[in-house]
Amino acid sequence: MADDIKMSDRTFEEMGFAKLDTDRKRRTGFAEVVFCERKSDEYLIEIYKKLYEKDGCVFGTRASEHQADLIKEVFPQVEYDPVSRILQIKKEPISSAEPTLIGNIAVCTAGTADLFVAEEAAKTAEYFGSKVTRIYDVGVSGLHRLLSRVDDINASNVVIAIAGMEGALASVIGGLTDKPVIAVPTSVGYGVNLGGISALLTMINSCANGIAVVNIDNGYGAGYMATQINRLAVTGKVKED
Amino acid sequence: MADDIKMSDRTFEEMGFAKLDTDRKRRTGFAEVVFCERKSDEYLIEIYKKLYEKDGCVFGTRASEHQADLIKEVFPQVEYDPVSRILQIKKEPISSAEPTLIGNIAVCTAGTADLFVAEEAAKTAEYFGSKVTRIYDVGVSGLHRLLSRVDDINASNVVIAIAGMEGALASVIGGLTDKPVIAVPTSVGYGVNLGGISALLTMINSCANGIAVVNIDNGYGAGYMATQINRLAVTGKVKED
Amino acid sequence: MADDIKMSDRTFEEMGFAKLDTDRKRRTGFAEVVFCERKSDEYLIEIYKKLYEKDGCVFGTRASEHQADLIKEVFPQVEYDPVSRILQIKKEPISSAEPTLIGNIAVCTAGTADLFVAEEAAKTAEYFGSKVTRIYDVGVSGLHRLLSRVDDINASNVVIAIAGMEGALASVIGGLTDKPVIAVPTSVGYGVNLGGISALLTMINSCANGIAVVNIDNGYGAGYMATQINRLAVTGKVKED
Amino acid sequence: MADDIKMSDRTFEEMGFAKLDTDRKRRTGFAEVVFCERKSDEYLIEIYKKLYEKDGCVFGTRASEHQADLIKEVFPQVEYDPVSRILQIKKEPISSAEPTLIGNIAVCTAGTADLFVAEEAAKTAEYFGSKVTRIYDVGVSGLHRLLSRVDDINASNVVIAIAGMEGALASVIGGLTDKPVIAVPTSVGYGVNLGGISALLTMINSCANGIAVVNIDNGYGAGYMATQINRLAVTGKVKED
Amino acid sequence: MADDIKMSDRTFEEMGFAKLDTDRKRRTGFAEVVFCERKSDEYLIEIYKKLYEKDGCVFGTRASEHQADLIKEVFPQVEYDPVSRILQIKKEPISSAEPTLIGNIAVCTAGTADLFVAEEAAKTAEYFGSKVTRIYDVGVSGLHRLLSRVDDINASNVVIAIAGMEGALASVIGGLTDKPVIAVPTSVGYGVNLGGISALLTMINSCANGIAVVNIDNGYGAGYMATQINRLAVTGKVKED
Amino acid sequence: MADDIKMSDRTFEEMGFAKLDTDRKRRTGFAEVVFCERKSDEYLIEIYKKLYEKDGCVFGTRASEHQADLIKEVFPQVEYDPVSRILQIKKEPISSAEPTLIGNIAVCTAGTADLFVAEEAAKTAEYFGSKVTRIYDVGVSGLHRLLSRVDDINASNVVIAIAGMEGALASVIGGLTDKPVIAVPTSVGYGVNLGGISALLTMINSCANGIAVVNIDNGYGAGYMATQINRLAVTGKVKED
Amino acid sequence: MADDIKMSDRTFEEMGFAKLDTDRKRRTGFAEVVFCERKSDEYLIEIYKKLYEKDGCVFGTRASEHQADLIKEVFPQVEYDPVSRILQIKKEPISSAEPTLIGNIAVCTAGTADLFVAEEAAKTAEYFGSKVTRIYDVGVSGLHRLLSRVDDINASNVVIAIAGMEGALASVIGGLTDKPVIAVPTSVGYGVNLGGISALLTMINSCANGIAVVNIDNGYGAGYMATQINRLAVTGKVKED
Amino acid sequence: MADDIKMSDRTFEEMGFAKLDTDRKRRTGFAEVVFCERKSDEYLIEIYKKLYEKDGCVFGTRASEHQADLIKEVFPQVEYDPVSRILQIKKEPISSAEPTLIGNIAVCTAGTADLFVAEEAAKTAEYFGSKVTRIYDVGVSGLHRLLSRVDDINASNVVIAIAGMEGALASVIGGLTDKPVIAVPTSVGYGVNLGGISALLTMINSCANGIAVVNIDNGYGAGYMATQINRLAVTGKVKED
Repeated sequence: MADDIKMSDRTFEEMGFAKLDTDRKRRTGFAEVVFCERKSDEYLIEIYKKLYEKDGCVFGTRASEHQADLIKEVFPQVEYDPVSRILQIKKEPISSAEPTLIGNIAVCTAGTADLFVAEEAAKTAEYFGSKVTRIYDVGVSGLHRLLSRVDDINASNVVIAIAGMEGALASVIGGLTDKPVIAVPTSVGYGVNLGGISALLTMINSCANGIAVVNIDNGYGAGYMATQINRLAVTGKVKED
Repeated sequence: MADDIKMSDRTFEEMGFAKLDTDRKRRTGFAEVVFCERKSDEYLIEIYKKLYEKDGCVFGTRASEHQADLIKEVFPQVEYDPVSRILQIKKEPISSAEPTLIGNIAVCTAGTADLFVAEEAAKTAEYFGSKVTRIYDVGVSGLHRLLSRVDDINASNVVIAIAGMEGALASVIGGLTDKPVIAVPTSVGYGVNLGGISALLTMINSCANGIAVVNIDNGYGAGYMATQINRLAVTGKVKED
Repeated sequence: MADDIKMSDRTFEEMGFAKLDTDRKRRTGFAEVVFCERKSDEYLIEIYKKLYEKDGCVFGTRASEHQADLIKEVFPQVEYDPVSRILQIKKEPISSAEPTLIGNIAVCTAGTADLFVAEEAAKTAEYFGSKVTRIYDVGVSGLHRLLSRVDDINASNVVIAIAGMEGALASVIGGLTDKPVIAVPTSVGYGVNLGGISALLTMINSCANGIAVVNIDNGYGAGYMATQINRLAVTGKVKED
Repeated sequence: MADDIKMSDRTFEEMGFAKLDTDRKRRTGFAEVVFCERKSDEYLIEIYKKLYEKDGCVFGTRASEHQADLIKEVFPQVEYDPVSRILQIKKEPISSAEPTLIGNIAVCTAGTADLFVAEEAAKTAEYFGSKVTRIYDVGVSGLHRLLSRVDDINASNVVIAIAGMEGALASVIGGLTDKPVIAVPTSVGYGVNLGGISALLTMINSCANGIAVVNIDNGYGAGYMATQINRLAVTGKVKED
Repeated sequence: MADDIKMSDRTFEEMGFAKLDTDRKRRTGFAEVVFCERKSDEYLIEIYKKLYEKDGCVFGTRASEHQADLIKEVFPQVEYDPVSRILQIKKEPISSAEPTLIGNIAVCTAGTADLFVAEEAAKTAEYFGSKVTRIYDVGVSGLHRLLSRVDDINASNVVIAIAGMEGALASVIGGLTDKPVIAVPTSVGYGVNLGGISALLTMINSCANGIAVVNIDNGYGAGYMATQINRLAVTGKVKED
Repeated sequence: MADDIKMSDRTFEEMGFAKLDTDRKRRTGFAEVVFCERKSDEYLIEIYKKLYEKDGCVFGTRASEHQADLIKEVFPQVEYDPVSRILQIKKEPISSAEPTLIGNIAVCTAGTADLFVAEEAAKTAEYFGSKVTRIYDVGVSGLHRLLSRVDDINASNVVIAIAGMEGALASVIGGLTDKPVIAVPTSVGYGVNLGGISALLTMINSCANGIAVVNIDNGYGAGYMATQINRLAVTGKVKED
Repeated sequence: MADDIKMSDRTFEEMGFAKLDTDRKRRTGFAEVVFCERKSDEYLIEIYKKLYEKDGCVFGTRASEHQADLIKEVFPQVEYDPVSRILQIKKEPISSAEPTLIGNIAVCTAGTADLFVAEEAAKTAEYFGSKVTRIYDVGVSGLHRLLSRVDDINASNVVIAIAGMEGALASVIGGLTDKPVIAVPTSVGYGVNLGGISALLTMINSCANGIAVVNIDNGYGAGYMATQINRLAVTGKVKED
Repeated sequence: MADDIKMSDRTFEEMGFAKLDTDRKRRTGFAEVVFCERKSDEYLIEIYKKLYEKDGCVFGTRASEHQADLIKEVFPQVEYDPVSRILQIKKEPISSAEPTLIGNIAVCTAGTADLFVAEEAAKTAEYFGSKVTRIYDVGVSGLHRLLSRVDDINASNVVIAIAGMEGALASVIGGLTDKPVIAVPTSVGYGVNLGGISALLTMINSCANGIAVVNIDNGYGAGYMATQINRLAVTGKVKED
């Protein structure tokens, strides 16, 4: 059975406390990314070292200031963005020319407070090679702001709609575009926003079509899936057997 | 203490199984209304008789077909609307001229399935003397339908926004008008709409201002409160001591 | 289509991280207000500067002590109220005469612990030009306190009923008055108060009529909507086409 | 150890599918009662036979019309009350004189729809020998109805407060009396009444003292515990070692 | 109407931010108690002063160490118990003889971690004049510990059953005694104990009779209601009109 | 503003009770589809007539047997599939050649009971022009069934993963493929499956990347969005400005 | 890799709508069982035929009366038990001697209403070859019934504790035995039993050790796992490398 | 009655604030373990002293760094593991030879972040005498890691499957082995992981057989029950009366 053969080809790096999935890039086209939250100092450093050694670059999400300082001691070239909390070692030498980003992903937010999720999504998409258009603070309480950007949204291959509180943005965008929308509820709000569950329910129950939802504050997941779709659009994988 | 005196003036009709609040009209300006659901046949008839005897008219909500038939045997002139489930005996002789309705309340729905709530709200408001503008099926998945009616919405004194599923309509209307919005979540939807709780959460968490929420499917309550506000607007109660 | 023309007239101030809705006052009759919570220091200062520059006054809610100190460095005339957490720059020169406040809004609380919400509501209503009557600590466990103030409640155009724990105050007031009641559940309580959800459910399920509900602790929203209603009552917008 | 000896004295009737707790009356002062709901026809008849044989009377709760018919075939003297759903075989010969009921329990309801619970509570208390005062339809939306009965409430030893929807009745009564209040939430209501959970939360979170809560619609449990308290009050168990 | 007259007799102390219910003792037989949590320093001191001035003693619950220090500066004789968090000024001169406590209340806990609630209940009951028997750490995982104390439980007038985690203690005690049981769920536990909601549900759903439930961690409420029942038992209020 | 012009171009069919969004196809590339559930007989017929008149075909979801019979009386050529509950009038004359379906969408289910959702998804995708590969009953309790089909999954442009109960299928597929996965929780299961909420939570919390979730049982929504992505892949929209 | 080879050895029966896991017995030691609920008539018959053909016996759970009649038409020898809802074709010829059952599993219930779950568990365990001791109606409200059977419980290898309502039985048994306890919450109860969730929470939060929980009403799952443990105990698999 | 005699034999150590269940080892085969969380410093020390005095060793779970320091002052030989938070005094003199551990328990985790639970489970099992095989970081997003260890899993007597986020690991393992699986959901994750409730629901709803679940993060409980099963397997308790 062909599949089994593939299984046995798959490899991983045994680190005792972890098994780095070094087969991931071959299997999914995306390199391993580090989810920094709740990782002990010791383990985080080991993982950054191992991945750097293997790939010459590392991309970590949900890193704290403390973790940024920690990694900076070992890799002075690491870059930390306090908004998105991304902690990244870029490939060296970074060529003078910026890497070519393909396609287009529209990243939209309802409010300013949602930026921490939006930047995680946008930077993730860029890391994986997608071009991103940022459209921030276009929530439905002032609809003219959103309507002024509909052309930009429709010029993308896929839209990421990010909103907290009541999360209505995804539905409204879904009704205005023919592109798939990845909706990201955020924990922004208070009272019965239930830490983002209210926005999540809104998005899941959307009366508009073409919307699917990821976890609360999961900018990374949205950026990842948007890239999968963007790549499909750009590479034009035609399959019509 | 002046208040106590008022308390002792208040009266009610003791019916054994119920105490009809015959003081209500004097106290709140609204006559007693019958919530028909779960009332036994025997009690319902007694209550309709008692109220008819006292006022010459009765207004009942959430009446079933069965209950309509029941009351029709006693009061052949009763009118039943299967959409709103309102079961009403109008004052006789109904003068040739329609009663004058005052002010204006805009009743908006996201979808066609929300009509049963909308008609309960509209007919309640009309029963209490308010003029109503019906604006149906203007949900956010086809925003141009709503935008084409913004002038009508702004020409009202108060808006009732009715929506199931994700309930985003209230937020969008709240952002387009300067009038108070009474939001009514409906049980319309499936999956994690949670019988209307998702829409309710959306409306309570709205990022737009000037929105307050009543219970799921509570068209009556919305029509009642909208009338209170509409009356204030029309009678121009100025108080600037 | 008339509506579209209005859409294109609408403007906003692009600030990169935010789009200030400078069209709001024209559209809704209420100026933009700053929700300070979770805003970064840098953004908050920029927003206060921009709004001050435009209007000569700024009204912020949910400001922390830290944020108050921050703004005070730039605008020494700013005023901070630690109970309501409102951070306000008033128009200068403040004329010797107090501005005329119109109508009347009764702001009632069940307990002393609800004051932080009540003051947010009251000060918001006053900021938008409404006269406010404060009726505090009249919870239902000592009913005579509430009954002694029924006349004051009925002398208002609209009532704000604020309560935590079981939130029964709104129902009781709703049964005693003919005015619309905006109910505000608060997070005050412990155990299964569920951070205010219990009070919210009580208010939404009220057996009394004329009650609609805003989010937990949302004094601002209640003050805003009460002002909309109070204005309608005072300006006596009659519309009987 | 004295306790162990008691344990071994305790007996029960082994019926294969059930173990009738015939020790209950000795241990708790209350005879075994039959919870009819979900019992198969065959088992129900067997249990009624066994208990009748032992005590000459049977008291069953939550019996359906079908079950009443079933038992009536075996025991023609059985009495069925469709409101409380109690299915009872009384001791024969029922002496001409009514049995003496002791003390006093006030059973109060917010609305007419709560009667099915109230009658279960009242009849249970009467079955166990307590005198009951019924005070129905005194919900907080028409407070004067309740205030007119405060003297009756205070003349009881213990109060049962029964309410659906928002369940505010218990708090208001708790603030008006010095007697312990057993609160019973009911499933009456719609929308986010959550089948009675909203009323339960209201009662558990009550700001008034002297209130404890039983399960939704649990009239039997309330009548039982009220009788325990009523007995203590009447028999004047003084214990001041 | 007699009731109204009573209403107007009722008085309270207006403090601006609060209305002290000085009618409470006359109305309910229990003096006003201070719930210290979330009270500002300034207000707390004012309330202690006002109550001390009026009664010569003050009883406060849920006081923090900080609040204890605060009150101690004004009233050096105040006593603070860090387990129950009760902050109490006792009447002076405390006569050499302890006040006579009446009746008997059994206060039982499942575990050691529940003591903070148990002591709040016990000390409250003692403050209101009840004798208390403490039966701690008798949870159902080691049943012999509970069985060894059944005699003590049955010698009381009323039982308070306190448990966190799965809260099974109340059901087991309910099956072993003929006394009313006030069940207090505690927040003790982890995982899906849901901060005490799991124990609360257990207690509300108890298959044993004679159990009613108060809020999570509400030792005060349990001590209060147990005292109401204990007083009835001791004073032997017979009422058999 | 260009956007406003587009807004005013948008049209809809006013039907009184509904506004058919006839602009939808132009705006989103997908024709209006009828959600039959809860539509009255009268309205349903009118909508089918109107859409048939306009397009010569109608596609309805969630139709009951009763509704199928109803429409069959008017349109004898209508086809009803009791598994997917799709009620469809196809374009006439249906050419002898099947329409060309493009790309490939893999529709996978965990169990046989999930077929009603899977067929709704598959038939929707086919209606909108996508080729579908059905891979049914490959749940994780017998992993070898899924592993035998990994090649087929990877040969698609996008995967729809459908599962009830614990919903683990989406995560496992997400780890095996580089294609975007649209996860559909189903209501299949019992106990704490919570009508599908458990599966939904599993899918939203997935540790695998490239997964987004639609509402419970929402096969239509998954088929719609999968088609959007499939079209992007096939038409190879390259955009690299 | 050895594992991959095993994977490819695994087989299943492709039935189009289902893939019968015919590898299960080899892999887990338990034959495929049919979960009848929600299976269409057509599919159910096909599956019974296929399994009968393969094994000469079929074991189905959650079968309705209707389904029993259906299968009886094809296999007249099928046996249906309306309590456990098990629909079983036994191996023929059933030898005169009963099959030898090994070890011992104690199946305990709190009440009579829990029997439908208990019999599913017991019959499942017997089907898989375990001896079962039934101990029914030993709920904690009459503790002496349970205590009289402790010896029987301790004589088993593993205990299944089944309870609805508050579910306290599992904790009490857990404290009395040294055997592993599989707890099964049932949907028996009313009010906030939440369809069995309350009992489930009780069991998961148990203060006793050695308890793990399966889904609500999942008698089959409990019987299955108890058999796994019972087999280990009987076959005495010693492994001490 | 034999049982009663056993009851009276049972003893416990009365400590005032606690009753140490010194009968536990005799009754269940497992010595008393200290749950350190929320224990006051004073009580913790007393309990460690008492148990050490009695047994010469103490095993505590959920100990903080602070508590470790505290006990170290009294018992310098105490060992603290910051990952599992186990605080243990081992029997002295620890013989040169390691104690013989019996059987085999496979402890598996989905991710590195679950180690704190896994180590609590593993160390608990080892403390009670079981051999443990650790299989960490084999979550389903990289299935080949798990498949490479299936032989090790099947070589154990019982499996502990530990996972946070969506918790799919338990189902996948359940499908691959014939051994009973104790599933432990962890609080690892974010968004709607709901502090581990999502993983718990996944595990309870598992479509695989032979899985039962303990509380979130309850490594101790899993290690305990796994040991019960492991002992049964090793000691080969055959009982076939």
